[in-house]
Amino acid sequence: MDLKKRVLQTIKKFSLISPGDTVLCAVSGGPDSVALLFILNEISKEEIPISLYIAHFNHMLREESDEEENFVKEIGNSLNIPVFTERKNLKEITGGKNIEAIARRERYKFLYKIAQKIEANKIATGHTASDLAETVIFNLTKGSGIKGLRGFLPKREKIIRPLFETTKEEVENYLKERKIPYRIDFSNFSMKFSRNLIRIKVIPELKKINPSLEKTILRETATLREAEDFIKEEVKKILSRANIRSDKAEISLSIIKAVHPFILKETINEMFFKISGEYLNRTKLKAIEHLIKKDESGEIDLKKGFKGRKDQNSFSIEKEQFSPENKVKIKVTSETEKIETPSGTFIFNAKNPHFEIPEEIIKKGVFIKNREGGEWLQFPYGRKKLKKFFIEKKVPVKLRDFLPIVVTADNEVIWIPELFKKTYIKENQNIIGVRFESGIKNFDN
Amino acid sequence: MDLKKRVLQTIKKFSLISPGDTVLCAVSGGPDSVALLFILNEISKEEIPISLYIAHFNHMLREESDEEENFVKEIGNSLNIPVFTERKNLKEITGGKNIEAIARRERYKFLYKIAQKIEANKIATGHTASDLAETVIFNLTKGSGIKGLRGFLPKREKIIRPLFETTKEEVENYLKERKIPYRIDFSNFSMKFSRNLIRIKVIPELKKINPSLEKTILRETATLREAEDFIKEEVKKILSRANIRSDKAEISLSIIKAVHPFILKETINEMFFKISGEYLNRTKLKAIEHLIKKDESGEIDLKKGFKGRKDQNSFSIEKEQFSPENKVKIKVTSETEKIETPSGTFIFNAKNPHFEIPEEIIKKGVFIKNREGGEWLQFPYGRKKLKKFFIEKKVPVKLRDFLPIVVTADNEVIWIPELFKKTYIKENQNIIGVRFESGIKNFDN
Repeated sequence: MDLKKRVLQTIKKFSLISPGDTVLCAVSGGPDSVALLFILNEISKEEIPISLYIAHFNHMLREESDEEENFVKEIGNSLNIPVFTERKNLKEITGGKNIEAIARRERYKFLYKIAQKIEANKIATGHTASDLAETVIFNLTKGSGIKGLRGFLPKREKIIRPLFETTKEEVENYLKERKIPYRIDFSNFSMKFSRNLIRIKVIPELKKINPSLEKTILRETATLREAEDFIKEEVKKILSRANIRSDKAEISLSIIKAVHPFILKETINEMFFKISGEYLNRTKLKAIEHLIKKDESGEIDLKKGFKGRKDQNSFSIEKEQFSPENKVKIKVTSETEKIETPSGTFIFNAKNPHFEIPEEIIKKGVFIKNREGGEWLQFPYGRKKLKKFFIEKKVPVKLRDFLPIVVTADNEVIWIPELFKKTYIKENQNIIGVRFESGIKNFDN
Repeated sequence: MDLKKRVLQTIKKFSLISPGDTVLCAVSGGPDSVALLFILNEISKEEIPISLYIAHFNHMLREESDEEENFVKEIGNSLNIPVFTERKNLKEITGGKNIEAIARRERYKFLYKIAQKIEANKIATGHTASDLAETVIFNLTKGSGIKGLRGFLPKREKIIRPLFETTKEEVENYLKERKIPYRIDFSNFSMKFSRNLIRIKVIPELKKINPSLEKTILRETATLREAEDFIKEEVKKILSRANIRSDKAEISLSIIKAVHPFILKETINEMFFKISGEYLNRTKLKAIEHLIKKDESGEIDLKKGFKGRKDQNSFSIEKEQFSPENKVKIKVTSETEKIETPSGTFIFNAKNPHFEIPEEIIKKGVFIKNREGGEWLQFPYGRKKLKKFFIEKKVPVKLRDFLPIVVTADNEVIWIPELFKKTYIKENQNIIGVRFESGIKNFDN
């Protein structure tokens, strides 16, 4: 079957596009997004009347970046579709750390911004069934529960993925048949990123076992999406019988004890999320399950600032009242030091490879503390208040007072371990802030 | 921590062994099963008093098979544990087809036989967390739903897997430290089997991304097992409100329409299983869901001999009454022929590479038909009645009359496409019996 017809089926199946929609198509210049653009363009003329726009984000990561930007602009001209672009030197901003995740976040931010500007109600991306297979294998490797195993969705908020049921191979055949030019994203061939390792080394081996791997995983994820939806509905039913305020979530024992252990943990996790903006790990959830099921009352420490409490009739998650006495402020006195704080063990290393702290600053005094107000960060373009930085980074209000920060005697923030730890753990180098049990989930995603 | 202590934790966590148990330990001679045996032996003396026996199945597949058998007997002698062995030349029996699956089935048959003989209530196998990771990746590749993604269980019927939470690496370190000898299973290094491809080519790549891959997948499967258990309980609740007889399963529309689409399909699938011994594929299940949800009544063909029927108040799965008029008997008149039967399209090829039918037999007459009674099969050691063959092969009674068979004019059965098709489809060669929508599930497993 013609690829356009197949894409139309996908569009219909998942209700991706309706007549009159304004669709912003994200085009990198690679085969997937170029094919998507051409197909959407045809569809807009022949089947579903939509207004089509192109967005291209220039990460300035590679030599070819500018050429790719020009290439996308040319396609836009030739198809008579307006092109929006933005350039951002991510290497400069990130210092090369965790760059793929940050590039992704910046790209989506850009797409939403343009969509708002042109009043687009849909943002189309070129993700294929081959990308889905990669994502699922990656998430299985990293561990992510049912949500990870079902991969990304064909539709989520404004984002739509019309190539969801199409393989990379089918995309490439389509382009070849019609002699449509595209750019090869050379970063795809780099072994630097886990995703590329899965694409280049793992998937070809698995396709020896099952040549229709992508279609098979597509079917698997459909089942998982439906199972996940069912589980969510069940949790919602139980959650509707809980009492959730901003600083306390409470559920009656008679309700929570009556549900299946799986739903018990899922429900408690959602309750925790509602007041903390984070999820608990499985070990903590099991401990809570144990507390709920045993005969006695009791308390359990959750993440910093949150407690689980079981009394005679109910289980509740409570935000600890933040009071000055709970605040921590510890002076670091040597270049390398292991510091115990109420939130966990903190390893301070002034000479780590990422962030060297000059001796004179240490001498003047470096503190590990909770924020007290008046802290600031130095950026190349000027100072920024810590509060403003927290807002920009979408750090939940409830967490801001609990995050340990490292400041100089002048109240300059030089490190916020919770916000950056992921990178450091991943790279397995000297770490200046670790051992905290939690991070801010999805901060880098 | 000492490996024995860790295994004891696993044993306790999943209630694998209790004092006084009689445990038959399956020992191939490879590292996993040898380590398991030594650990169980220590445990039996120091922590949990059990009676321990060894079983070894000699597949006679490799040159080293006899040496492995002797090796296991020697270990048994040295530890003073009785060893039960059996030899079966599987190459001869199977002709080399699908040999890994058949070897597995024969091995389990043998284990259950010995367990019964010595009144063992547990059969311990050496499956590790590394095997679990392999299984999960294999099942994801082949497509298998939540049940496949959660892999094998730490405990199932008599089978227990005390190394469920132990990696291959940990096993090898244990053996090395104690200088315990073992045999290397060379078939593990062969690329012939998909499983080995995953073990040798895929897992090492994934471990570059996550060095604790096995532990991560172990955690993932724990979540999936619990989710699966919850789903099963929900389905059971709905099923308890259905009316299930041997030839008909019926459920009220008001009940089945009220449940989540995921549970609807799972419930219908269980209803179908209860009267047919088989499961439906997802496409069929979706068609049933559609039928149930639309306004009109209607019928839907399921697998051969089964119908779905929706009337005003209920949905039912019915076994079609088998009557002589429904029987098929079609004479094949040429060497290659495409024959339409009520069960599907049948491609007959007398000169296929697996099974050549001499011209004179074709001339005398070859029939594709349902059994009428009196059919027989010729084996090297003599004739066997078709009925007896069906019983041995565990073909469900309900299916026996529906299976198309190919017989000569003398009523000699020369082919039963449904029973053997898997092999042929897999090898992608000329196929003499295909196009039937279903097989007998798990026949080869």
